[in-house]
Order: sequence, then C-alpha cells, then structure tokens
Amino acid sequence: MEPPVDGNPQLIEVTRGPMVESRHRAAFAVADPNGRIVLSAGDFARPVYPRSAIKPLQALPLIESGAADAFALSAAEIALACASHSGEPRHVDTVLAWLKRIGCTTADLECGVHLPSNDAAMHALLRGGIEASPAHNNCSGKHTGFLTLARHMGVIIKGYIAYQHPVQQRILGVLETMTGLDLGSAPRGIDGCGIPVIGIPLSNLALAFARLVDPRDQPEARQAACERVCTAMAAEPFMVAGSGRYCTRVMTATGGNALIKTGAEGVYCGALPKLGLGIALKVDDGAGRAAEVLMGRLLRHFGALDDSHAELLSQPLFNRAGGRVGEVRAAADIAF
Amino acid sequence: MEPPVDGNPQLIEVTRGPMVESRHRAAFAVADPNGRIVLSAGDFARPVYPRSAIKPLQALPLIESGAADAFALSAAEIALACASHSGEPRHVDTVLAWLKRIGCTTADLECGVHLPSNDAAMHALLRGGIEASPAHNNCSGKHTGFLTLARHMGVIIKGYIAYQHPVQQRILGVLETMTGLDLGSAPRGIDGCGIPVIGIPLSNLALAFARLVDPRDQPEARQAACERVCTAMAAEPFMVAGSGRYCTRVMTATGGNALIKTGAEGVYCGALPKLGLGIALKVDDGAGRAAEVLMGRLLRHFGALDDSHAELLSQPLFNRAGGRVGEVRAAADIAF
Repeated sequence: MEPPVDGNPQLIEVTRGPMVESRHRAAFAVADPNGRIVLSAGDFARPVYPRSAIKPLQALPLIESGAADAFALSAAEIALACASHSGEPRHVDTVLAWLKRIGCTTADLECGVHLPSNDAAMHALLRGGIEASPAHNNCSGKHTGFLTLARHMGVIIKGYIAYQHPVQQRILGVLETMTGLDLGSAPRGIDGCGIPVIGIPLSNLALAFARLVDPRDQPEARQAACERVCTAMAAEPFMVAGSGRYCTRVMTATGGNALIKTGAEGVYCGALPKLGLGIALKVDDGAGRAAEVLMGRLLRHFGALDDSHAELLSQPLFNRAGGRVGEVRAAADIAF
Repeated sequence: MEPPVDGNPQLIEVTRGPMVESRHRAAFAVADPNGRIVLSAGDFARPVYPRSAIKPLQALPLIESGAADAFALSAAEIALACASHSGEPRHVDTVLAWLKRIGCTTADLECGVHLPSNDAAMHALLRGGIEASPAHNNCSGKHTGFLTLARHMGVIIKGYIAYQHPVQQRILGVLETMTGLDLGSAPRGIDGCGIPVIGIPLSNLALAFARLVDPRDQPEARQAACERVCTAMAAEPFMVAGSGRYCTRVMTATGGNALIKTGAEGVYCGALPKLGLGIALKVDDGAGRAAEVLMGRLLRHFGALDDSHAELLSQPLFNRAGGRVGEVRAAADIAF
C-alpha cells in the first residue's frame, strides 16, 4: 500500500539528546557561468519555485532599464529591492522615503500586509497600537522596485504584480537569459506577495547566480546591473534581511565573499564572487532551518566559511528555559 | 558522494499552482489493544520522541494516584493536563485558579515562558503591556498536573521535571505498561518544557492509545483513569488546544469519536473509542502541517471524518492578499 520510496538524499538532521529526531532531504546544484555543475546532490533537474531567493535577479531590470539612475537609488534601496526584510524600522522607513520619491504611497503596494517577522519590531507595533502596513511586508522593497520600474517605463502602475504586466514580462525576460531557459511554458503559480512564481531547475538557478557574479558574457548594461546588485548586497547586508537573520549574518561574516538570499519553502540561492560560482538548493519539505544549515555547509566546502563560523554551520536548539537540548546540523554521512 | 536514499514514503504534498512545491515523508501505525497493527506505512518500529502527543498518557498518574479526586479536578482541568494550549484567557485563568487550589504559584512552574501561540491572545498581552508568565506556556496545564501529583504524593516539588523525580518516574512506569516496553534504556532527551522525552516506536505509541480507549486489560484504577482522560478530552476540546487549532476542531467535529493530540516535530497521536484503535504518526521532517493532514486522512479512512469535513482533510494556502494559491493535501498516490 506504500508508494515507491525514492528521491533526494537526507542531508540535514535535527538531534535531541542522543537521537536524531527529524530528517530533511534536499537537492542542490553549484554551477559555473558556463552551466557546468561542479557539485550537486539529488534531483537538481526538477523544477522548483525559487520564491524570494531570486529577488537579486528580479532587481536587475530595475537597474539595466535606467530606472535606478533616474531615481538615484542608493545601495541601501537596491539591497532592499533584493530583500526579504524583517520589517525593522530602518527597512520600513527606507521603503517609505523611496515610495515618496517615486510619487507613490503604500496604497500602491500590492504585496499585502503582515506583521514584521522581527520580534522587537512586531512587539513595538503592537505595544504602540500601530497597524501594520504593506511597507512592513517582507517584500515591500522588491515591490517598490517594481513600482520604480513601472514609473520609469511609463506604464500603468495598477496590476504590476500580474504575469502579463510589462514589469513582470521584463523580469521574465531577464530570468530567461540568466537561467538559459525558455520559461514561457514553465509551471507557474502565485507567490505569497502576489507575483508570479516560475518553476525552474536548481541547475539553472545556480547558473543564473554564477552569471550574477561573473556576467562577462552578458550585454554591457546587464554586466553593470549585476555588479551593482552584488555591490549593494555586500555593502548593505542588513537591508537584505535583518537583525539575526541568516542572510545578513553570512554576508556580514564573509565581508561579501558569499552573497546569499533565502526563499520560502526551503529554497536558498547564493553566489561566490571570487570563484564565479552560483548555488541553488531546495529542501524537499520546505524547512528553512535545513536550508540555512545546508547553505552553510556548502559555503564551508567552497571556503567562504570555515570552522571558526560554528554558529553559521549548525543551529543549537534550546528549551523554553534556555537549556541546550539538540541541534540542526549536516548529516553525519555527507561527503562535502 | 550522496548517501543512500531510503526511508519513509511521501504521504503529504504541498501544491502551488499546477506544481507540487514541497513533499513530506512520514511513518504511522494504527494498532488495536493487543498490539496488532491494522494499518501502517514506513518504518513504524524506529523510536521517535512523542513530545506533547502523549500528554493524555502522562495525565493518567494524576488520576489513578487519587490526586485528581483529592483536589476535585474538573473535566476542564484534566483536559488542560492533556493540552498544548494556545494561551487564551480561559486556558490561563483556569491554570491560575488550579495552581492556587493546590497551594502553588506560577513561580513553581518549571516549563519556562513563551508568548501565547494564539494571535489575539498574544496581541492582547503586548497591547496591554502585560508580561507573559509560565501560565501562558502551552504546557502549563500538564505542569500543573505534575505539581498536583507531587503535592498528593507528598514529595518535594522543586525539580519535578527531572528524570529522577518521583513524578517523572511514576509517569515512566505508566508509559511502560501502556506501551508494553521497558523504557529504562530507551533514548532520552529533554523536551521544550524541560521534562524528559523518551524514544518510543510508533507501533507502541499506537498500542498505548488503543489501550487508552479500550483499557479492559488494565488494572481497575488505570481503567478509570483512562475513561476520565478520554471523557475530559471529548467534553473540553477547547482546553486541549484552542481556537482554530486542529486538535480542537477535530474533537469538536467528531463529537469525541476521535481523540487526538499533537506533538512538536510532526508527531500526532490519537484514538478511536468506538473502534478501540490507537494511531501514532511522525512526519520525518517535523512539519505540523503534514502531520495534521495525515491524521485527517487516517481519520477519514477509519470513518471518523468524511468528505463533508473537507476543511479538516486538506489545508488551503493563501497569499498575503488573501488569494488561494495552493494546498497541503494527501499525496495523490497513497492507497488509504
């Protein structure tokens, strides 16, 4: 009565006391700018929704269109366009000032509303009796980037999240050239913030991120856009995520030698500028804890982290009283 | 370079648009009071930490010791002893009144502190500037039960969460007779609320829950305790979890024809009183969403739910703006 068992390897495990309590399977690909896979595990050819992990790619049209220059975007704003931010005051204030500069308000943001993921920011809102706005949505920077692009293109703003809107079509074109795929008939769903999500194999996502840090074969405007995105993420790691967040901690700890971006449902993408390599991974079950630990393990394998970064390579588990009771770690038997 | 792939079947899937985005593997066992496995999938013989899913078993000594009668515990209080509650006012107020009646305060609770999981309750605390206390901890009812048992046994209260404490040793004895195992050398860790967690195979957990609803082979005091726990859970489903929670909704919808209890890291236990069957499941990766949907599927298989309970059989996924974008559902190819 059981379906056949196959699939991706168990790469991450969660311990409690002497026992492994939970297990996470995953696939990943690490690619160079020619699409050569230099390391992989599992079924990296199966399409996955990259979710927010490709925000750095989605920010490219904002720059190569000339919109970023026309509106004099700062590195902090470009980093926010690549962000799943925690809704902390600096994130929200920067989005609000940027919206104003392009003649928009939070009413133009079509991302929906949620409370900040950062506890202190959320508690401050609730204690102050302040309603959350679309600017608190973790995607508000990306959406403000979309609005900026729409303004610069001179197209209607309303409906900018729809697949058919010129902004999303322009992004689709960039995704196609960066991943090397025709995505017109790729599986398509709707993301948490309302924009299209496109099914793309991990190997092609890894290729796109390799090209992001080594865009020498891309047109000149694309090369400049890639460099500006990478420079902004390295310079403003707080803006890409927030206090205590894994993306921010890794980019800070490595001084930008690793550029990484998380996505919902256990996706992570990243790039190693010095090596010209792109990384894409997906945890089968969607667990972010496993995606972070697997990304850390890969960054260690490629020399961007070492054993002195223990706090980025595994995650201790604590009980409510603060005692250490287990950890999330790379499985004992993996070979990288 | 990849470890061998084997393991439990993919029973639950998460869709977004036309594609399966994430996949959950699980094992389960359904047993009768003689330990016969009537349905199973995956490796049900591997020990798992049952976490909070065995609170109904951990409540048995509270009753069979005479403590529940000595302190005149209500059905609501016994249901709270079996609960992972959401920290809503009725949960917290009931715990506080119960603590007072046994001559204890929140300072005696060793479960630690966390904010209520119920959003409205959490927001009310923060908006009111009220600090969370150990009474808000989802395990505070279970811990108040432990304190009640310690009072009745006349043993020192402090340290009641330690493995060696007479309260925990008494619970261990009950777990041994209900599961049919010698647990003295079983794998042992520490739970989120500080008490011991013991590694137990799913088949033995299913047996214990079958005996909970059909205790005819147990001593008389155990029989009475089992009946009182089951009656309390069926009568007070809100107290076992809370508003909108899956345990509460299922026990309400079935009028107590299914008694179920969730545990952390993707564990669920349950029992079907009319059939005398016990159920135990564990999602490999620890995802609660998959554990709920798998439990729903099993309850449908055994007739406790039917297709009119669609909202208990799968879980729609919405984006931030409220649009339906996918669902968590039983995998298409499972045979039960």
